[in-house]
Amino acid sequence: MITKHSAKSSSKWLNKVQWDEHGLVPVIAQQTGTNDVLMFAWMNRDALEKTVELGEAVYWSRSRKKLWHKGEQSGHIQKVLDIRLDCDSDVVLLKVEQVDDIACHTGRHSCFFQQLNVAEAEWQAVEPVLTDPEAVGK
Amino acid sequence: MITKHSAKSSSKWLNKVQWDEHGLVPVIAQQTGTNDVLMFAWMNRDALEKTVELGEAVYWSRSRKKLWHKGEQSGHIQKVLDIRLDCDSDVVLLKVEQVDDIACHTGRHSCFFQQLNVAEAEWQAVEPVLTDPEAVGK
Repeated sequence: MITKHSAKSSSKWLNKVQWDEHGLVPVIAQQTGTNDVLMFAWMNRDALEKTVELGEAVYWSRSRKKLWHKGEQSGHIQKVLDIRLDCDSDVVLLKVEQVDDIACHTGRHSCFFQQLNVAEAEWQAVEPVLTDPEAVGK
Repeated sequence: MITKHSAKSSSKWLNKVQWDEHGLVPVIAQQTGTNDVLMFAWMNRDALEKTVELGEAVYWSRSRKKLWHKGEQSGHIQKVLDIRLDCDSDVVLLKVEQVDDIACHTGRHSCFFQQLNVAEAEWQAVEPVLTDPEAVGK
């Protein structure tokens, strides 16, 4: 678990991240153990700092234009175990423990449930809905 | 393997993708089997269509502003086994077989080799270099 006595005392590690022209960085959340890719979202500087502070994933909602503590409504919190940065320092990868195993607002384990069927030339939903989407929220 | 008798005959599946204001979509490449996240890149419409046609990952290089057939110089091709789209249809996930097990231009298996050491408040390279980066190219 990323601990609460965080890296806040220095911002050098935050400066290392190559934030884009909107001050954001793409973030991939991956389930620890299975290594399933759960979802993709964005963070700004505050979101990444808060993620480290809480030990739970906090994203930047581009649609709502505010910090989004994942699971704050649904309870589907992501406990953050490892934070990685890519070779160009412009993409973040979180290894998380997904509470209730449900990351997607559709009630599925992972957001990546649409599979390209090449022969049919169409995307098909291939993962089950595990819980009522109405109950998930964000 | 995604086959060559591709979905080109219809572009409906390409229209389903929510391309951003630059005509791009974020793409995550994941190693089949281990599920390691190898890299993150972008595709435009042509790149995704070409990926399906070849059965190998073709990205859009934002820096070089042209299609980038991953491994075209280095030989580190990515054979594409599965293509997923997320719940908002604006992020693509590729399951690939990474030739030579090296995806990163630094000569590492994965691009996500910088780990946040929270106590030290710094990013540390924690994955080994497997081959001479000079030989990798793009």
